[in-house]
Amino acid sequence: MPYFDAASSAPLHPVARQALQASLDEGWADPARLYREGRRAGLLLDAAREAAAEAVGCRPDELVFTPSGTHAVHAGMSGALAGRRRVGLGVTVSAVEHSSVLHAASAHEAATGGALTEVPVDRYGAVAPETYAGALHEDTALACLQSANHEVGTEQPVAEVAEVCRSRGVPLLVDAAQSLGWGPVEGAWSLLTASAHKWGGPAGVGLLAVRKGVRFAPGGPADERESGRAPGFQNIPAIVAAAASLRAVRAEAAAEAVRLRALVERIRARVPELVSDVEVVGHPERRLPHLVTFSCLYVDGEALLHELDRADFSVSSGSSCTSSTLTPSHVLRAMGVLSEGNVRVSLPAGTPEAEVDRFLEVLPGVVSGVRERLGAPAGADGAGGTGGSGVLDAAGTEPSLVVDALGRRCPVPVIELAKVFGGVPVGGTVTVLSDDEAARLDIPAWCEMRGQEYVGERPADHGVAYVVRRVS
Amino acid sequence: MPYFDAASSAPLHPVARQALQASLDEGWADPARLYREGRRAGLLLDAAREAAAEAVGCRPDELVFTPSGTHAVHAGMSGALAGRRRVGLGVTVSAVEHSSVLHAASAHEAATGGALTEVPVDRYGAVAPETYAGALHEDTALACLQSANHEVGTEQPVAEVAEVCRSRGVPLLVDAAQSLGWGPVEGAWSLLTASAHKWGGPAGVGLLAVRKGVRFAPGGPADERESGRAPGFQNIPAIVAAAASLRAVRAEAAAEAVRLRALVERIRARVPELVSDVEVVGHPERRLPHLVTFSCLYVDGEALLHELDRADFSVSSGSSCTSSTLTPSHVLRAMGVLSEGNVRVSLPAGTPEAEVDRFLEVLPGVVSGVRERLGAPAGADGAGGTGGSGVLDAAGTEPSLVVDALGRRCPVPVIELAKVFGGVPVGGTVTVLSDDEAARLDIPAWCEMRGQEYVGERPADHGVAYVVRRVS
Repeated sequence: MPYFDAASSAPLHPVARQALQASLDEGWADPARLYREGRRAGLLLDAAREAAAEAVGCRPDELVFTPSGTHAVHAGMSGALAGRRRVGLGVTVSAVEHSSVLHAASAHEAATGGALTEVPVDRYGAVAPETYAGALHEDTALACLQSANHEVGTEQPVAEVAEVCRSRGVPLLVDAAQSLGWGPVEGAWSLLTASAHKWGGPAGVGLLAVRKGVRFAPGGPADERESGRAPGFQNIPAIVAAAASLRAVRAEAAAEAVRLRALVERIRARVPELVSDVEVVGHPERRLPHLVTFSCLYVDGEALLHELDRADFSVSSGSSCTSSTLTPSHVLRAMGVLSEGNVRVSLPAGTPEAEVDRFLEVLPGVVSGVRERLGAPAGADGAGGTGGSGVLDAAGTEPSLVVDALGRRCPVPVIELAKVFGGVPVGGTVTVLSDDEAARLDIPAWCEMRGQEYVGERPADHGVAYVVRRVS
Repeated sequence: MPYFDAASSAPLHPVARQALQASLDEGWADPARLYREGRRAGLLLDAAREAAAEAVGCRPDELVFTPSGTHAVHAGMSGALAGRRRVGLGVTVSAVEHSSVLHAASAHEAATGGALTEVPVDRYGAVAPETYAGALHEDTALACLQSANHEVGTEQPVAEVAEVCRSRGVPLLVDAAQSLGWGPVEGAWSLLTASAHKWGGPAGVGLLAVRKGVRFAPGGPADERESGRAPGFQNIPAIVAAAASLRAVRAEAAAEAVRLRALVERIRARVPELVSDVEVVGHPERRLPHLVTFSCLYVDGEALLHELDRADFSVSSGSSCTSSTLTPSHVLRAMGVLSEGNVRVSLPAGTPEAEVDRFLEVLPGVVSGVRERLGAPAGADGAGGTGGSGVLDAAGTEPSLVVDALGRRCPVPVIELAKVFGGVPVGGTVTVLSDDEAARLDIPAWCEMRGQEYVGERPADHGVAYVVRRVS
């Protein structure tokens, strides 16, 4: 049963299970108590902190355990922002951070009025250090940058950005949730966060490292545990399991990265050969070893996930139809790449080669089945339509068709565009009326993939009019 | 190895261990995902929520899981306070709430200026409903009351206070951390919080119930999990274990309560017979079945805990010398009872009778050993001193001694008082100079136990002067 969504949550590593079970007997008492059971729990906690700190590359007294990566991000950001309140209230983040970072930044902005600056990314999803530098202002209290992107696998230039931040005196928080199992984060970061269940540790454990010398003022009600930075009774068996499994995955990381990178390369190379109209996204080299993302034109992401699940493959998607808000992933949006038919494959450590091969066998049939049911244009160029469903633009002075896709969800607006496009002469335009948020991303992406010109968008009576010109 | 500190954290119940282990294989995936592993995790989460809601006495959609009881309290209070912001900012709590409630109330007061009203308790640690009613004001947004006290075991009149709150339109949050394993909380509460590791569940799970119709506005950064009320990836194996163990302890609760209540009664009756100068605190009848607290005059709480640990008994204490702040427990202070030599015994389910008997055998020797090393007065009246170490009060118009205990920590000021007291004639006074916070509680408590008159305190050049008059 191939599970290809390690980036959401990895199956429990055997070492984590073993450590969890072994510490249930010794780790249940309050480590703040001085009696036997408390001392035993405290020793387990101390040992776990030392092991985890070594893996992070910090001192044990710089590291606290939180109940999740989200808690680590929230506590780290609010503590660092409060600690620098006298300098300013601004917060700078990349546009492709995890939602926990973006939501914490928005909450800070709403509560304090501190300006939120988003650093744009290139088409691979990476920030440029010089762009990041330009997004640091006089009043910037905190900068945030992920070590690698959770949706497309692109690694960020953390060491360079950390150097920029250091030279400007701005602390940098690195969300290392996706990468910590693969290795420590290089560079002069100030704060670091991570989440154990992403590397095969148990749920219920996040890490927050705050370097000595970083101003930090914990928010919320006072609590003595974890240096006042993470309230609540510690979950010591889970913490022990998290630390033990981090050591274990690190011991296997170098070899496993080589192996999984080859499997990911196979997917990156073969999917566009096996499936027409696919865009593989994310940086081709500076990337996580186990994660690959691609998008398929004319495909409904939800149907694709459902069919892959029926074929026993568990993957995730950044398509709008798979999100509760019906908007495409903010990562794909920031990158300006196709969002429809989006599939993220993230291989857990130990994934057999044969599972990847079977995925490559199954995928083409699944995609074409979904396309068929949607009535998508056939063939690689996807422009076999005759324009029958379009109508002439009343105000048009050049050959122009209007396609009304109002009320239709992704990928229908792009399918309707493709259906009529073949019937438009070179130089003519097609205007797609759509009220689907994904169209804003997917129509320009279609043009890019097809080598056609995206003219732009304008407001319409209902929804938005997206204009495409045929240039070839 | 008798562990008598269940009120801090209970050993893992066998059902919790079993459920935890059984759900490690099925509960690691993201329950928000629609693939097989996600659906399985989601089913486990749904079933756990139903079981826990039934035990709490609420609907499943009223209950969310948090990473700890502390998180439940913080989220519950801030959400309820924010939801009623238009009504007012005031918060009313009993003086003997758990520190998580008091700290959240203080943080709210500091952040918003909302008035914090503390409801005093009687000598048993209980609030009176009519006093609580008087502490609800026009601008009271939230009232909090524990179901039973964590340090002395006294049950609060929750149903009566809930009725008072209901009639005034103020939501009542009940911290049920100490009692939920014994049974549901009766009455028309609005919010309820609890902590799984207190009933033998695993660490890492708190409960927050919010009744339908209660205005609630979650604070902090947005997060979709747990109805937006508890951010972060859910720890499903621990949640499953928490729910399963709550059912299991409830099934045993009625019989076990009878058994433990008899053991606690034995301690309450025998300790004052076996050890001189002991005050048993907390309500004699309206109390938790498994918890008993007493204080021993002329004893250093830390030494007592240490000696009991050496004799294999793990207990806790509210004495000042056992707290990081060197102040006595706020609960004992609010009750106005002796804090020195304080011992809390909280029996885990299944505690054998023989362990309690052995505790009663060991305790007298341990207490007298500590007293001996401190040079405490011997004998039950403890007033065998000759006044040799006192000096005549320069300004005194009546026979008066001044005892300088500056710089000496609990229980020394009370020991010094007792040493000289026998040398003072009836009608004369002893003035104890002390800069130890515990003296403010323990000198009046000593007078109460001895039947002597506590005249009062006044500021002194250094520390505080506590004046006691000999009346018999």
